[in-house]
Amino acid sequence: MSKNLTSRSEDYSKWYNELVVKADLAENSAVRGCMVIKPYGYAIWEKMQAELDRMFKETGHQNAYFPLFVPKSLFEAEEKNAEGFAKECAVVTHYRLQNDPDNPGKLRVDPEAKLEEELVVRPTSEAIIWNTYKGWIQSYRDLPLLINQWANVVRWEMRTRLFLRTAEFLWQEGHTAHETRDEAMAEAELMNNVYAEFAENFMAIPVIKGLKTESERFAGAEETFCIEALMQDGKALQAGTSHFLGQNFAKAFDVKFTNKEGKQDYVWATSWGVSTRLMGALIMTHSDDKGLVLPPNLAPNQVVIVPIYKSEEQLDEISELVKTLMSDLRSKGVSVKFDNRTTYRPGAKFAQHELQGVPLRIAIGPKDLENGTVELARRDIFTKEVVNMDVIVEKVVGLMTDIQNDLYQKALNFRNSHITEVDNFDEFKDVLETKTGFISAHWDGTPETEDKIKELTKATIRCIPMKNKQENGKCVLTGNPSKQRVLFAKAY
Amino acid sequence: MSKNLTSRSEDYSKWYNELVVKADLAENSAVRGCMVIKPYGYAIWEKMQAELDRMFKETGHQNAYFPLFVPKSLFEAEEKNAEGFAKECAVVTHYRLQNDPDNPGKLRVDPEAKLEEELVVRPTSEAIIWNTYKGWIQSYRDLPLLINQWANVVRWEMRTRLFLRTAEFLWQEGHTAHETRDEAMAEAELMNNVYAEFAENFMAIPVIKGLKTESERFAGAEETFCIEALMQDGKALQAGTSHFLGQNFAKAFDVKFTNKEGKQDYVWATSWGVSTRLMGALIMTHSDDKGLVLPPNLAPNQVVIVPIYKSEEQLDEISELVKTLMSDLRSKGVSVKFDNRTTYRPGAKFAQHELQGVPLRIAIGPKDLENGTVELARRDIFTKEVVNMDVIVEKVVGLMTDIQNDLYQKALNFRNSHITEVDNFDEFKDVLETKTGFISAHWDGTPETEDKIKELTKATIRCIPMKNKQENGKCVLTGNPSKQRVLFAKAY
Repeated sequence: MSKNLTSRSEDYSKWYNELVVKADLAENSAVRGCMVIKPYGYAIWEKMQAELDRMFKETGHQNAYFPLFVPKSLFEAEEKNAEGFAKECAVVTHYRLQNDPDNPGKLRVDPEAKLEEELVVRPTSEAIIWNTYKGWIQSYRDLPLLINQWANVVRWEMRTRLFLRTAEFLWQEGHTAHETRDEAMAEAELMNNVYAEFAENFMAIPVIKGLKTESERFAGAEETFCIEALMQDGKALQAGTSHFLGQNFAKAFDVKFTNKEGKQDYVWATSWGVSTRLMGALIMTHSDDKGLVLPPNLAPNQVVIVPIYKSEEQLDEISELVKTLMSDLRSKGVSVKFDNRTTYRPGAKFAQHELQGVPLRIAIGPKDLENGTVELARRDIFTKEVVNMDVIVEKVVGLMTDIQNDLYQKALNFRNSHITEVDNFDEFKDVLETKTGFISAHWDGTPETEDKIKELTKATIRCIPMKNKQENGKCVLTGNPSKQRVLFAKAY
Repeated sequence: MSKNLTSRSEDYSKWYNELVVKADLAENSAVRGCMVIKPYGYAIWEKMQAELDRMFKETGHQNAYFPLFVPKSLFEAEEKNAEGFAKECAVVTHYRLQNDPDNPGKLRVDPEAKLEEELVVRPTSEAIIWNTYKGWIQSYRDLPLLINQWANVVRWEMRTRLFLRTAEFLWQEGHTAHETRDEAMAEAELMNNVYAEFAENFMAIPVIKGLKTESERFAGAEETFCIEALMQDGKALQAGTSHFLGQNFAKAFDVKFTNKEGKQDYVWATSWGVSTRLMGALIMTHSDDKGLVLPPNLAPNQVVIVPIYKSEEQLDEISELVKTLMSDLRSKGVSVKFDNRTTYRPGAKFAQHELQGVPLRIAIGPKDLENGTVELARRDIFTKEVVNMDVIVEKVVGLMTDIQNDLYQKALNFRNSHITEVDNFDEFKDVLETKTGFISAHWDGTPETEDKIKELTKATIRCIPMKNKQENGKCVLTGNPSKQRVLFAKAY
């Protein structure tokens, strides 16, 4: 199977598209821009969800569920937000189909069933949620309101790619309400930190925490925190964002509260989200020309055991051994699958598990039965070793941590070696085209310069890193004075 | 708070509507027929999801995700299914909004952004899923395909009620594909059994397993298994359904496989689902005039501890005790909340937890500190007792099982005493109006009689119970010969 995978150096984009499909993660559907997330891909997403959900609850958030549809009049209430999403909205206009009199057996939209007010399929839920919060918040006693929603959203993107940019995607969106500006700002930063911790410790993806420039902010936000990762082709990927929304939505939806001094004030808001886009980040950070590489934390099966046998007797003997081994591994929290399918040969199984990124493969054959050993193979660095049965559990448990750490370290080294300080625009263009990665350069702080650089190079300002070093310099494009370097890159 | 709740005897329907809102489970939204599921209600739904998901995986199913939208041409492919849902479909016709030239600051649908083919927001996913399965199934090696999806669906119902019937609702839908009729039929029955086990053992709701009559079947099914529960007002509620779809969808979407004999055959299908409607069943089975009553398995907090104090010192002393108690309870798997809010008095807290159905309340006051005791109160039967601190953990753990069992037994007694065998139509009408509940009566097996009874009494055939006793009798309406009794009831 994997022999058919295009290599990264040949065509990175093609490699990605092929890998997603061949590793059984997702595929395109009959609906333009919408994907089907296949069981293997969904199992990885479930692991992300479980960990994120745990982290959200640990930081005091509760889950809730709000409607899929946003009435147009609510959608347009916060102008900047509406403007930002209006161009890519799926709009429900009718609520019934009827038999088509001109085409027997076919249906058509019933013209009599036109909605009085159109409904927008949520591209994000600020509008419907803040309209609801109006009824929930009266006093400081009702604050902070810390709510998260797991949901599907729709943005009618013109150019889509599996996981990275799809018309419908799955995500979580946190929406919180606070008494003060400071508290809301702290919440927005806290959740960006939660995302960073999740990306680094759980997904083994190093990220840079930072702030977006004004022109890259979420529509309706006063400040956008983000985490930026670097893919193997040297392009950046925004892996999560957390927004300080000021009082914009509270004002648009008239959400006031009585503060401790007995006075009425507008509530302060945040929102934050990560999506199935993280699947794209995961795939592009760790995988190789042989297929998917998964950190143990995210692998649906951390270990696969493949029996190698010529007779039914040998298979029985191996199966007996495997039964104990699986139970021992599971008692240590290791997920393991025994691939005893009789319809495939060992070679085909090896190829499939390699393509699907199972972190460890254990093969047991007749010689192993004689010697009390197994063959243990690491997916990430392709090492193989013969290991004694009596130490295999301990060995596997240790490798779970090692592989997780090694993948992170490898990605971190790559990322760190791809942040280049640049002081003139020729070098800027050169690094962008040859070395690629993040470029750390002075910028004069104006949207005009930002736009011009984007126009000339396709690079955007990915973020102004948190706790950014302040230093005097000259803008890489205009030569105007600058107080700090920011990170540029081409991005997904 | 609870003093305002309408009693069940006064107006059952009003009692339900008030309870859902006052107990903070859900509320109506700005979108017609769509609800907001509030954090407390959603926490209960999450517990249902977790247990069902575990049961599905244990029976070999995997989760996946399919698009929200169904292109009209796919939607209409299976005629009966299309016909069944066409009248209540939300239809997306456009993909963009634009500034309204006649109303500055307002948006309107961009007439240029009309979709070539309308998209139906899924009311159920057979069409989009079977269109996908076509690409996944070639050979018997690809079967069985056992997939479940957690998703939102939309059915444009005209009369909606929180949880029971909403335009958008959350559910899971299993969609499986099999080599043979028998295997598919066995799967459909298996999943109905899983639902029954879940309802009875986890939700403490007794259910009757049965088959639907032809006219009550899912649109496109050849057989529909169901579980039917009985609410306290004597009306039945369909709590889950599992469908044997025959080869209808395989034929509509041309899904063939090569069987073991090397011949091409159409695949056999099932689908099965339960939804947030289960929340309605839960509420209406156990709750009382004081508010919600929750079985411990579904309670977001199984125990709440309320401190009763006059001084800060007393509160500190109680808090110290509670710290240990909570850690001991949690180590035994009991979820517990310390309600130490200073903004509410104990009486208000008692009322709130009663209204929200927390199974056990522990109050600790100054006297308890002296005596080494706590006051323990059961929500379901309102008993209170003073318990020594050194046996409280053991006591609470035991009560978790007791309450769960007692609630089931109580509901079972009610249900069993509300199945009435009836042999003539006057009695049928009388029981239906006075005693209510299920009526076990002979039926001549024709849809015409079924319709007539429905027209005359509003009662429908809820199910033909599994392993139904075969006995000769006369139809309760027509007097025509009948081989078995079936269960009639008015239903939600």
